[in-house]
Amino acid sequence: MPTIQTDDPILLISEEGKRYLLHVQAEGMWASHRGHILFADLIGQPFGRVFSSHLGHKYLALRPTTSDLIRHLKRTTQIVFPKDAAQLVMELDLWSGKRLIEAGTGSGGLTLAFARAVMPGGKVYSYESRPEHQRLARANLARLGLLPHVELKLADIAGGFAEQEVDAVFLDVRDADQFVPQAEAALAESGLFGSLQPTAGQVSALIEALQRGNFVEIRVEELLLRPWKAVADRLRPNDRMIAHTGFLVFARKISAAHRHFWFDKRQRRRAVEYGHWTPTTADASDDSTDADD
Amino acid sequence: MPTIQTDDPILLISEEGKRYLLHVQAEGMWASHRGHILFADLIGQPFGRVFSSHLGHKYLALRPTTSDLIRHLKRTTQIVFPKDAAQLVMELDLWSGKRLIEAGTGSGGLTLAFARAVMPGGKVYSYESRPEHQRLARANLARLGLLPHVELKLADIAGGFAEQEVDAVFLDVRDADQFVPQAEAALAESGLFGSLQPTAGQVSALIEALQRGNFVEIRVEELLLRPWKAVADRLRPNDRMIAHTGFLVFARKISAAHRHFWFDKRQRRRAVEYGHWTPTTADASDDSTDADD
Amino acid sequence: MPTIQTDDPILLISEEGKRYLLHVQAEGMWASHRGHILFADLIGQPFGRVFSSHLGHKYLALRPTTSDLIRHLKRTTQIVFPKDAAQLVMELDLWSGKRLIEAGTGSGGLTLAFARAVMPGGKVYSYESRPEHQRLARANLARLGLLPHVELKLADIAGGFAEQEVDAVFLDVRDADQFVPQAEAALAESGLFGSLQPTAGQVSALIEALQRGNFVEIRVEELLLRPWKAVADRLRPNDRMIAHTGFLVFARKISAAHRHFWFDKRQRRRAVEYGHWTPTTADASDDSTDADD
Amino acid sequence: MPTIQTDDPILLISEEGKRYLLHVQAEGMWASHRGHILFADLIGQPFGRVFSSHLGHKYLALRPTTSDLIRHLKRTTQIVFPKDAAQLVMELDLWSGKRLIEAGTGSGGLTLAFARAVMPGGKVYSYESRPEHQRLARANLARLGLLPHVELKLADIAGGFAEQEVDAVFLDVRDADQFVPQAEAALAESGLFGSLQPTAGQVSALIEALQRGNFVEIRVEELLLRPWKAVADRLRPNDRMIAHTGFLVFARKISAAHRHFWFDKRQRRRAVEYGHWTPTTADASDDSTDADD
Repeated sequence: MPTIQTDDPILLISEEGKRYLLHVQAEGMWASHRGHILFADLIGQPFGRVFSSHLGHKYLALRPTTSDLIRHLKRTTQIVFPKDAAQLVMELDLWSGKRLIEAGTGSGGLTLAFARAVMPGGKVYSYESRPEHQRLARANLARLGLLPHVELKLADIAGGFAEQEVDAVFLDVRDADQFVPQAEAALAESGLFGSLQPTAGQVSALIEALQRGNFVEIRVEELLLRPWKAVADRLRPNDRMIAHTGFLVFARKISAAHRHFWFDKRQRRRAVEYGHWTPTTADASDDSTDADD
Repeated sequence: MPTIQTDDPILLISEEGKRYLLHVQAEGMWASHRGHILFADLIGQPFGRVFSSHLGHKYLALRPTTSDLIRHLKRTTQIVFPKDAAQLVMELDLWSGKRLIEAGTGSGGLTLAFARAVMPGGKVYSYESRPEHQRLARANLARLGLLPHVELKLADIAGGFAEQEVDAVFLDVRDADQFVPQAEAALAESGLFGSLQPTAGQVSALIEALQRGNFVEIRVEELLLRPWKAVADRLRPNDRMIAHTGFLVFARKISAAHRHFWFDKRQRRRAVEYGHWTPTTADASDDSTDADD
Repeated sequence: MPTIQTDDPILLISEEGKRYLLHVQAEGMWASHRGHILFADLIGQPFGRVFSSHLGHKYLALRPTTSDLIRHLKRTTQIVFPKDAAQLVMELDLWSGKRLIEAGTGSGGLTLAFARAVMPGGKVYSYESRPEHQRLARANLARLGLLPHVELKLADIAGGFAEQEVDAVFLDVRDADQFVPQAEAALAESGLFGSLQPTAGQVSALIEALQRGNFVEIRVEELLLRPWKAVADRLRPNDRMIAHTGFLVFARKISAAHRHFWFDKRQRRRAVEYGHWTPTTADASDDSTDADD
Repeated sequence: MPTIQTDDPILLISEEGKRYLLHVQAEGMWASHRGHILFADLIGQPFGRVFSSHLGHKYLALRPTTSDLIRHLKRTTQIVFPKDAAQLVMELDLWSGKRLIEAGTGSGGLTLAFARAVMPGGKVYSYESRPEHQRLARANLARLGLLPHVELKLADIAGGFAEQEVDAVFLDVRDADQFVPQAEAALAESGLFGSLQPTAGQVSALIEALQRGNFVEIRVEELLLRPWKAVADRLRPNDRMIAHTGFLVFARKISAAHRHFWFDKRQRRRAVEYGHWTPTTADASDDSTDADD
């Protein structure tokens, strides 16, 4: 039976449902305005038990999941929602051994989910331009023992990424459309591109940038999580829900040499327009009609 | 640069957007009504390229992601959607080294996602009662080299699971509420329970079963994926979407000895009603008021 | 140009976006903690103007729409959302001349929408069992001049409705399934039934009751309103939204004499089960297979 | 009891659920590949009954609602969905006596819903530039007896609307943002503006146009209708749903003379930028900070 050990992250839930993420230390206590709990009283006990503060308030101690960690990590940047982290791990095809570039690191919430997905054997190369964010992310990841699977980089990505032939690139930066060429340069052929964008205009700009580059299979999607009240005889959706956490944009890189075999007419027109590609007579011939949805 | 090898799964996309999942063999060809492609012409070539059938039809060859595989695996059971697979991997906290029980195996779509999440070091114990499903799942998983991470079991789960102290149990079976005690017996304390249920009535039955058992943090949620048309200057949601793939139900097991410290009043009332627990005077005293939302 | 008159309802919006619904009186003033506005200063002025309180706070004066009124009427019962009121008016086919039964009246929010839809020439028969609700609804409707189009009834609907051959019945009461026979008795053939139900279990009970009665075309639906931030260059959905206001249930009454020509197999089975109908050999013959959805 | 009369619209539903909208004529028959039904056999019979074709196929005859009519009217333009028609009637505050401008008429589906909302006493001024659409709309509205409540106009709206001081303007035209000044000129102060726009870019353009004009309370929203399977013991959402029918945009006109009292800082900046308004020192002073959403 797994028991609570020094350095373990632990999720305490109060009777009112408040959640506290802490790291058990060899000495000392966890203190709140409702009393303290000695770490010594936790260590060696199984997870899934109820502990009392010295003032008699009860707390359930659970082993925090990646989802709990993402939600409750100390952060200075906007929250990433576990549902989006889950979908990114799935659609960027992250599993043991994969190599991924992430920009920016932020507080490390997504980095954590990515690192656990690709470990062991894989690596997350996580770029961040602001040292204070990287510091926080490093502390968050270190505490969870994930630093061996992450390479934290302090750099402006305008200059490009140091890695080559990576399996996936995820851009969560302002003006992501500006960095699509850098992402393309780092990706292996058939590699996966992903981004999370808050506004419709940013999505449009990103689509344009991907279409100017050697990307196909461009997809935009929203993921809506609708929680229900878990009451058997009064089952119904919650009154309110989070309605927007961002648009997910995905694409796949293909061979530059093969792009003209593949691009749809719209992309081809743009490629010509932007001077990226010169059509031959054969190509032009089937451009006569263009029925957009 | 990764190239196509014998035994690799490969995703071919036609110019019309039709998708074909195949496994490259040392000899022979892939044949469709639009012509064939020799495997010999694929082997050694990079992914992300365009190949032509002998009739001149073009196909883009991509390395299939877990999401592609789930969607295009040969199956005799209902499809699992990658968005749900993703959320299950996240909320059941599956990563390298975790041990999970899955029932039933079906065609192995979810098993594949689970196996890639927990490998290496972890294990998926996947139960199925119908031999023909297990056979198909085994073939699907074998082809992807995932059998070392999966233990396929042909058994009726009414008799319980052979494993102990697993990190998570996922039930995707009819009458899942009937098997909650078996799930509880196999789970470690603080372990995670998950299920996918098609109808509201089944969700209610499952909530009741979890509340009779030693489960807390019971959550019900729906995940809606809304695809958009990826057209920069005509950005808008698709006309249609998948509106329902099932209700996701999650819960966490806690210590039986501690349940009376924790259960909310509603659960306590039911535990008493079902003869699972006898309240003391102290417990009863704060049951006087019960304001359900 | 329409100007503000005595007795007009008026919507004042503060610079912070707070909304106040008031009725202009011949004398006196509207007072808030941010100062007062004399009614005399409003009367004779056009709507759509900005007025200042004596403390210099500005308020935009708009003519309140039915939607504004529903939202801001004084009420002691749960709010009805304008989107649901709109859909009910549409799907119950309420327009000038129609006769509708509503139960219960509540604070009169829906009654107001229904009355404006059927006036002139039509009538809303609105039943309520609690006098204090009816009193409030009467005051709300009187102030808007809608009483000529509404007949407020203080009665327990278990005893049935006094009206016959009405075009539509709307039930917004607890245990609505118990009152389906009364609704059926009051409806004209081809008449429309509607209800708003908060939980899945109540919807199931109502479907059963409708299927036991002479109802067909039973529909259940949810209406989700997703507001967006109206910012041209940062267009995106709001962070949060109302996720549940109730399930809308609709049905149409058909001739009792014709029900056996029409009921689907499932309904037929239930009608037999409940003793409502005795199948002939001919009917039974096509009951052999029953492929649900 | 209402019976079927000559000229009545009637909705026939086949046992397979196919729907046919027809108009009963004094003589003749309704014919399909499953046999014919003589009009003489329908006339004088109540709605809500089942009729048989001469080949023995059964059809349920219902009085079509506005919602049925919108869905099944003969049309050459894109369908308007009843849920959107309902919300437009509600949020444009259309009820007996109101005067509304609609552009364009299209096949008359929305015109029908608007006409029934404002009749009697009100009027729909419906503009259309293509004669063939107007002809079809006229036929559709005539058959329903709605022409007395509609003024069909064949005109290009770039030249403005002939009406003044209308209660509401609804624009369902390409490049709706180009016609906002015309809409504003026709609207009474406090009047309501509405539009249905398919893409995000069009919504942004429209918001900008409204902000340049004298409009406040600009709102953008989507309305999602999620149908459920109406099966009591297997209650669940349908597998698929319509995911997008357009963005609804609403706004209210205020007095031009008062706009500078009211516009938020963003609008004020744009008004200055577009030369619509010159700020005074007092106005400028509180522009120093601008915290967007």
